[in-house]
This record gives sequence, structure tokens and C-alpha cells, in this order.
Amino acid sequence: MARYTYHCALRWSDMDAYGHVNNARFLTLYEEARAALLFGDAKPAGATGMQRGIVVARHEIDYLRPVDYGDPVQIELWVEEIRPSRFSVAYEMYDDGQLASRARSVLVPYDLAAGRPRRLSDAERTFLTEWRDAAD
Amino acid sequence: MARYTYHCALRWSDMDAYGHVNNARFLTLYEEARAALLFGDAKPAGATGMQRGIVVARHEIDYLRPVDYGDPVQIELWVEEIRPSRFSVAYEMYDDGQLASRARSVLVPYDLAAGRPRRLSDAERTFLTEWRDAAD
Amino acid sequence: MARYTYHCALRWSDMDAYGHVNNARFLTLYEEARAALLFGDAKPAGATGMQRGIVVARHEIDYLRPVDYGDPVQIELWVEEIRPSRFSVAYEMYDDGQLASRARSVLVPYDLAAGRPRRLSDAERTFLTEWRDAAD
Amino acid sequence: MARYTYHCALRWSDMDAYGHVNNARFLTLYEEARAALLFGDAKPAGATGMQRGIVVARHEIDYLRPVDYGDPVQIELWVEEIRPSRFSVAYEMYDDGQLASRARSVLVPYDLAAGRPRRLSDAERTFLTEWRDAAD
Repeated sequence: MARYTYHCALRWSDMDAYGHVNNARFLTLYEEARAALLFGDAKPAGATGMQRGIVVARHEIDYLRPVDYGDPVQIELWVEEIRPSRFSVAYEMYDDGQLASRARSVLVPYDLAAGRPRRLSDAERTFLTEWRDAAD
Repeated sequence: MARYTYHCALRWSDMDAYGHVNNARFLTLYEEARAALLFGDAKPAGATGMQRGIVVARHEIDYLRPVDYGDPVQIELWVEEIRPSRFSVAYEMYDDGQLASRARSVLVPYDLAAGRPRRLSDAERTFLTEWRDAAD
Repeated sequence: MARYTYHCALRWSDMDAYGHVNNARFLTLYEEARAALLFGDAKPAGATGMQRGIVVARHEIDYLRPVDYGDPVQIELWVEEIRPSRFSVAYEMYDDGQLASRARSVLVPYDLAAGRPRRLSDAERTFLTEWRDAAD
Repeated sequence: MARYTYHCALRWSDMDAYGHVNNARFLTLYEEARAALLFGDAKPAGATGMQRGIVVARHEIDYLRPVDYGDPVQIELWVEEIRPSRFSVAYEMYDDGQLASRARSVLVPYDLAAGRPRRLSDAERTFLTEWRDAAD
């Protein structure tokens, strides 16, 4: 029902030779927002398993305007779909108040020790449901 | 009618804390293959404009199996669609002979000096057409 | 006479396969602190030339303890030596209040357009002198 | 008595906004050469422990000329000093046949599981001695 907001500081080194934030680096910025939610905020909620392993099955990302080094970008993130052994997260990135990029990730809970996917725990499902949002 | 093959050396630093090549880094590896084709091989063909500016409008990427540090990965790349002011490139990444990832990028020729998209030149269109491949 | 303090957010992707912030990444974190001072804070002081080109002639860096993903690190930075066409900056990085690393950089003002070193301007020298600190 | 030579492919993304290979990235390129020797070549020699943990205690790096995206750089690497629980490696980086950078690293064998430094094994010491070189 809600969106998670993360302010992500940019680094001078995020720029590539074009003088803008590199396109691949956007995924790293989205990853930071996702890690803050799934690894950080999930912990006090008892959904601790995700830090031990979440693998990415798919990313889609649209670039709407170049992002320049300067103030932090604002990333909004919400959960779109929850299935027994995968869920999807959607994101929007705002730079100076303007939508600069949109993305969506399909994520799979993973048991790194056993080397195979696993099902979401009840605590994880409950946590993710809180961040569900229907809007695109 | 042909696919471009690029062998991309991995770096120890491509791994993240999970001990596999980081998911965002895949876009960097695909970028290397794309740069080798569009910035490198395009030059002798007279299609020199792309090095001066190509921006990414969209990426889609599927992760099929984790990639580990070791031998270079093999990236196959081909042009899918060519329009007056954008084109799309598809890729497959093979690790130890097995398909590890697939991706697709929508690319826009850009005039960095003027700060706006531009149309493909005739030389660029001819060059891209040589690397067109219908198969997915 | 003073030290510049910069709080640098860590990214999950700063960790390498050992699960700690990668050693090369420390230079990037120091670079962020340096960019904030020399490119950011220098501007209102009229020392605008450095953003247009500062090249690194040398780095020395000591690693005292591993840094883990989590809260931002605190970087302290000061100017050590100022010569007509080069100056040196020293840094300390604190993680959870403990000294984790020390570094020193020799920097050369550079005219990127002309492709050659240049001398510090008066405004730059005045700005740097404010951040001079004798202590190590 | 010998130097180890490693040809390191550059990536377009190694460039920063100045259009040259970023200074922090040099450490990553040196790391690749070091990993190829200490993690790769050491294995058939029976010195397998280093892949399980080597931490960096110090780097020194001098930048002599900018390195541009293009052909691989050539990195030469040799062992300078071997002590019971640390050793140092020196490097030179050549771009188009010209010396572009020099560096030196102090490395500490580490037991990642136990979280503490350890002594070099006999096999490691023998392996490192083969790559010892007195010249700078």
C-alpha cells in the first residue's frame, strides 16, 4: 500500500565518459534502494532471510533523461507481485524532481549454501505485502 | 545475417559478496561487447558517428545461471530492429558453453554536443544492417 | 587550519567476494570526499577551475581494518602541501568511530582542453590554504 | 628472477568523466594481474591458500601518463619482499609500449574463516620466491 523512498547519493565516479551517470550504474543505484529495504528494513520485521540470498532473475529498465553528478537521486520502490518462490519490485528514479528512469526486477529467494532457489518464508511474505503497490 | 562474437575477460572485482558476477555488472559486460562492435568495428566501415554518442533508452536482461570468476565469457550480439532514430541490439552470454544470460537494448544515436537525439546516418544504417539477425 | 568531514554512504556493491569493501573502492570513497570539497565547496569560494581538471599524480593508502557494508563511513580530509603546480591531500577514514584507513594523494591542476598541467590560480590557492592542516 | 606479464583488457566503463581510465580503476587493473598470478598460476604450483584470503595492507601508486580506452594494457608484476606473514608486490603498467603507472602493494595472507592474519605456507613461499625480482 506504500512506496519506499530512498535517497541515493551519487558519486563522481558514477559518470562515464559522456559526463552522465552510466546506464549500467543505474542498476547499482536501484540495487542500493532494494538492499536498504530488503536487507536493512526487513531485519527488524523478522524477515532476515533475504540478506542471506536473493538472486535477480530479470531486470527491465527505461532511461527517460540523463542523470548528472550532483544532489542525491530519489528512488521510489514498491512490490508488484508476490509468488511462492519469486517476487517483483518496481522502481522510479527522480532527479531534481523529474522522473529520470523506471525499472522492474524479478527476484528469487535463494539458499546460497545449498545453491538453489527456495520459497519465501511467512515473515518475508508478510514484509513484502506491506510494500505492495498496485500502481505502475 | 550474422552474429558478432566477443570474448569478455572477467575481473575478480566483478564478483559481489555472493561470490558470483554481480547482476549490474552484466550490463557492463554487454556494454563492452556493444562498444567493441559499435565504437570499434564500425570505424573502419565509415560509421564513425556512434562513438560520439549513443544513449541507452532501455535494457531488458534475463539471468539464467550465475557466472563465476574464471575464463572469459562469450557474448553474442546482433541487431534486431533499425528505425530512423533508434535501433535495438540483442545479446546472449555464454559461460563455459552454457547460456547464462540474455538481454536486449534499445539505443538512440545522440548528438552529445547539441544535447539531443539524431537520426542514423546512411553509413551507420548500412553497418547495422550487416549485423542484423532475425533469430532470437 | 581545519579538516573537512564527509560522510560517505556505502553501497552493497562496494563489497567484493570477501564480503568487505573492496580495497580499490576505498580510493573511490576518498575521491568522493575530495570531489565534494574541491568540486563542490570550492565553487562558492570562486575556486571553480578544479572541477574542470585535477589529475592524480600519486596515491598512498594504508588499510588498518576491514570496512563492512552498513552505516556511512566518515572521511576526514585536509590539505598538506601547496606548491605552484601541485598539492597534496591527506585523508582518514573512520568506520563506527574507528580508524579504518589513511591515505594521501598528490594532485595536479590540469587544463583538460590543452592537455597539460597548469598552475594553481590565486583563488584556488586561497581556498586550499583554508583547509591546510599540519597534523597527520 | 622473473616478471609476470599480464595483458589486461580495458572496458569503456573504465573511463571517467575526463575521458581517461579513472585513477581508482588502476588499482582494479593491478588487482586483475595480481589475481591472475596469486589465484590462478599459484594453484597448479600447489600454493592454493592465497585464493582463500589475501588482504591488502597498503598500496602506493604513481600515475605517469593518462591511459585511454583501446588496446589492452600490459602489466608487469614481481615480488619484492617476502616475510613470514606479509609480502610485497611491485607493478608497472604499459600503454602502447610506454610506462603509464607504477605501483607497489603490501599483502597479508589471511584466514578469512578465522578472521585473522596467518603465516605463509611453504608452498606459498616457494611460489612467491620464483617471482622475486630485485629491480624496480
